[in-house]
Amino acid sequence: METTSSWKAHGGTQGVYRHASSATGTDMHFAVYVPPHDKGAKLPVLWYLSGLTCTHANVMEKGEYRAACAKHGIIFVAPDTSPRGDDVADDDSYDLGQGAGMYVDATETPWAPHYRMRTYVEDELPGLIGDVFPADMTRQSITGHSMGGHGALTVGLRNPERFRSLSAFSPIVTTIGAPWGRKSLTAYLGGDEAAWRPYDACALIADGARHPHIRIEQGGDDEFLAEQLRTGVLRDVCAELGQDITIHLRPGYDHSYYFISSFMADHIAWHAERLKV
Amino acid sequence: METTSSWKAHGGTQGVYRHASSATGTDMHFAVYVPPHDKGAKLPVLWYLSGLTCTHANVMEKGEYRAACAKHGIIFVAPDTSPRGDDVADDDSYDLGQGAGMYVDATETPWAPHYRMRTYVEDELPGLIGDVFPADMTRQSITGHSMGGHGALTVGLRNPERFRSLSAFSPIVTTIGAPWGRKSLTAYLGGDEAAWRPYDACALIADGARHPHIRIEQGGDDEFLAEQLRTGVLRDVCAELGQDITIHLRPGYDHSYYFISSFMADHIAWHAERLKV
Repeated sequence: METTSSWKAHGGTQGVYRHASSATGTDMHFAVYVPPHDKGAKLPVLWYLSGLTCTHANVMEKGEYRAACAKHGIIFVAPDTSPRGDDVADDDSYDLGQGAGMYVDATETPWAPHYRMRTYVEDELPGLIGDVFPADMTRQSITGHSMGGHGALTVGLRNPERFRSLSAFSPIVTTIGAPWGRKSLTAYLGGDEAAWRPYDACALIADGARHPHIRIEQGGDDEFLAEQLRTGVLRDVCAELGQDITIHLRPGYDHSYYFISSFMADHIAWHAERLKV
Repeated sequence: METTSSWKAHGGTQGVYRHASSATGTDMHFAVYVPPHDKGAKLPVLWYLSGLTCTHANVMEKGEYRAACAKHGIIFVAPDTSPRGDDVADDDSYDLGQGAGMYVDATETPWAPHYRMRTYVEDELPGLIGDVFPADMTRQSITGHSMGGHGALTVGLRNPERFRSLSAFSPIVTTIGAPWGRKSLTAYLGGDEAAWRPYDACALIADGARHPHIRIEQGGDDEFLAEQLRTGVLRDVCAELGQDITIHLRPGYDHSYYFISSFMADHIAWHAERLKV
């Protein structure tokens, strides 16, 4: 692992790192904020999965998470959203290929060789974080935005014992039931929707997955809400099947980082309560 | 004035606006954050002047000021750093021309026709802000970064009755005594250094300007500290001439927005104490 950038920030260290990923077969970048802490201390970890077109850098620059992470003593990890490189399959559209990995392990041509973001964020990168940073990997939570909100919910629902709490900003709550999901999962996984169900938060809950702490923040003026995000489908599935969920619909807010940053400190405080248990 | 973008953020409104400036003879963009407030209320104003290469957008995206402005009820105004356009004089270097206006009214060819950033930030834009936003123009303070820290200190020292408090992150404290200043002021104002003194914070204090509330934040690992920023020159001038000043040297911090955002909330709280008087 190589440190490509490092800045002192809010008393801690914001770094960007590069490593050769065995999961994706490419070099991957990720960002980690380590707050000020006592020597030898092990700190809980909050994962943040980013949305379409993003890299590790968007939330690092615009997410306004460092003050809250410094206050609560939480490490913040932001992976990239796909493998990248000249020899990595891509597509001209913004919602498929590089920058749009959807946190799945692809099985289809030409995506299968490198698009293994499930394995990367679920297995490989946690191993590296636990080895290299002062992280207490028995205390993890996860959040994300849009495509990354889908990632946070599905990674979390598949691994409820690993994550103390799951939250999401403006998540894609169903890949099966919305165009972004249908387009990318058809490409990455093929036409059999049974293979998509581990990558659909609503389907996971319908199939029996549960988590005691789920929180959603959704802007009421989000231009993608009705067609792509469909918060109401998750609300109805949870109500029908007895999954507790807290959904805050925030009037006037859109899909941008101006929305995310407005509620980031609240989400971190909410995760902190559960990470300190 | 035209609204080019607007987002709800931290309960208020972050907007970007464009207007035809009579000072510069160009269209100018600026950013304003108006926090949540009671209908009819008039709020104090904090000006933020940006550094070399920046537009209004850098601090808007990376400055982490909105939470503190919402908490204290302060309007935050971020102008651009120069006139811009195909018919506006420019230079290939990053520290002269577009993006590097230095907050001066240029007198030299080819800069004089459009490079009138002193008049723009000191006279024209305050008039517009007072007319269009719910601003109490009897309560203003000013801050800025690097070239914009120079701007904040010099605008503030020339107008001590207008600004309750002056602060700066990593400011250029002397244009006469540092390469960035010497290069740009030679170009904009010609070779007679007497004409530069209203645009040099240390010279203004030496020539008698005073302000009761000045605060500087300076990163100890700032790569520009020794040659370009020269905080110690200001410290010594203030000590010699009896100008009170608070200078915080922050070990380990550099010149970036990771430094600015780490102390932005502190600066806003400090200005808020003085704006509420």
